[in-house]
Amino acid sequence: KHVCKKACQRVSVYLDMVSLAQDSPFTNAGTGSNLNLSGEIECDASIMDGRSLHYGAVGALSGIKNPVLVANRLLSEAQKGKLSAGRVPPCFLVGRGAYHWAVDHGIPPCPSDQMATKCSLSAYKRNKRKIELAEKVECSAGAQVKRSRQSSGKQNGSGSLDTVGAVVVDWEGNVAAAVSSGGLAMKHPGRVGQAAHYGCGCWAENAWKLNPYSIAVSTSGCGEHLMRTMLARECSASAQSEDAHQALLDTMQNKFISSPFLASEDCILGGVIVLRCCRCADSEPSADLRALLVEFLWSHTTESMCVGYMSAQDCKAKVIYSGSTG
Amino acid sequence: KHVCKKACQRVSVYLDMVSLAQDSPFTNAGTGSNLNLSGEIECDASIMDGRSLHYGAVGALSGIKNPVLVANRLLSEAQKGKLSAGRVPPCFLVGRGAYHWAVDHGIPPCPSDQMATKCSLSAYKRNKRKIELAEKVECSAGAQVKRSRQSSGKQNGSGSLDTVGAVVVDWEGNVAAAVSSGGLAMKHPGRVGQAAHYGCGCWAENAWKLNPYSIAVSTSGCGEHLMRTMLARECSASAQSEDAHQALLDTMQNKFISSPFLASEDCILGGVIVLRCCRCADSEPSADLRALLVEFLWSHTTESMCVGYMSAQDCKAKVIYSGSTG
Repeated sequence: KHVCKKACQRVSVYLDMVSLAQDSPFTNAGTGSNLNLSGEIECDASIMDGRSLHYGAVGALSGIKNPVLVANRLLSEAQKGKLSAGRVPPCFLVGRGAYHWAVDHGIPPCPSDQMATKCSLSAYKRNKRKIELAEKVECSAGAQVKRSRQSSGKQNGSGSLDTVGAVVVDWEGNVAAAVSSGGLAMKHPGRVGQAAHYGCGCWAENAWKLNPYSIAVSTSGCGEHLMRTMLARECSASAQSEDAHQALLDTMQNKFISSPFLASEDCILGGVIVLRCCRCADSEPSADLRALLVEFLWSHTTESMCVGYMSAQDCKAKVIYSGSTG
Repeated sequence: KHVCKKACQRVSVYLDMVSLAQDSPFTNAGTGSNLNLSGEIECDASIMDGRSLHYGAVGALSGIKNPVLVANRLLSEAQKGKLSAGRVPPCFLVGRGAYHWAVDHGIPPCPSDQMATKCSLSAYKRNKRKIELAEKVECSAGAQVKRSRQSSGKQNGSGSLDTVGAVVVDWEGNVAAAVSSGGLAMKHPGRVGQAAHYGCGCWAENAWKLNPYSIAVSTSGCGEHLMRTMLARECSASAQSEDAHQALLDTMQNKFISSPFLASEDCILGGVIVLRCCRCADSEPSADLRALLVEFLWSHTTESMCVGYMSAQDCKAKVIYSGSTG
């Protein structure tokens, strides 16, 4: 299966968008990512192509500036078929193995200290002090430790904005989705979050027989919550129903906020962007390739989420700061 | 939420089963695992508790004899609630980070060379020669490389049996599932397969409102195929229908063998074991806790699969060698 050139160009445009966001020191992806408990940057990223339904992901990857490019390269290498001697190409690589694979495939390495920013370093020091203090209190409380673990407060301030996700559709209705994240601040080294996890960080599925809509989804929030509810895939499945707005609200309520999978959690954090499109019923199939009806929706339980969108006619994105639970 | 002691004992029995299987030099899990392209052992394992719906997983983990014990410890630590300073406990750790977490939590390290066996080492040498030969042929074929990649033959002989999975139910109908794998022979370092992937390697869900049955599933086969079809979760969902046998066959056919997610694959390899149970309709709720109807099913597209089962009354498992596609 060959992806047509137009679709390739579009995918490369949106990979550029994710890469740019990763390069921004203000996002929790690539440069400026949250530091882990050891003061290192380890990134997760994944990408899904709605046409081939192929998927590529990296987890706990250090030393690469744009992890999403590695995920994309895994996807495109897998589309070429088997490796020598009939070996199945990997779709998910982690840690040092992922780093070496990336460098072997021409993706330039980047020293980790160049990816840390003043902001991420000072957040790390602040969080480190906070943990030390909390553990002192727990120690002195003795037998109360377990209880205090369960009731302790909010997530650490990360000092940066959140995960970066993108969803895209081309003229022909092909969709794709990508996500990139530095993960939770002060996470344990080796922790992999939703951004590397199939069905959790992003999802893309072109329209086919049973599915009238092409849909692309990307998520952000607490990785463990997004993984255990497979939120990206759930949102994609529900958005096949006619009223996408209501379906998204229902999914966020029933499959996330009140999900039995998160029954023991007290502060469920997540946000999604959803793009869906279908060919207009009254347009002739070959007459006008542009007769696509495209809807863009978002929802979040987090205090805020930044959302941007643009069409091929726009020269820059419209940006919305979504402030309350929407 | 506290898990009752009986359920705990049962879970520990079946963890012992998985650990024993990992210790066996004849299985591709723990000791005797397939070696990766660099000649190292990197294991994946996960576990899911159908009662709490918690999940723990490790990927590309070296130097630990029983990876499933680390996955189980991640699960039980996560059930205790948040870490100090409100940090969310991880449910999925990979590589060196996973190793250090395990050792910090009292799980003994094991030098990797003690986990390799004569059999796995000789299979590695054989596969290495095979790859070198295949790459020489590809090089001399020049422009044919891409085509040869796509049409090249079977997976490497691994020299060991496959992934180890277990599904279990206690007297009260609580289910759990676990899986442990050394992954594909000659995989790229850092490659993570289905055994570490939520919804793909194992699934367990107690009966609740909409689901009449408690179901536990564990899978084996080619990780990339099992991941991209989320086979464990799909089998679990379909087994809620009345005729579990037919539902499993349909799922293997429609969601795996003919799945649009694997449209470009030529040899789709997978096997599943499914345990489902429900309380007998005519038994009084409190009269006899043992009035459970338990069904155990399996299916595979691989040439063979070994299946064993036992009840608490049995002193050893009944083992079946399932030879043809069933």
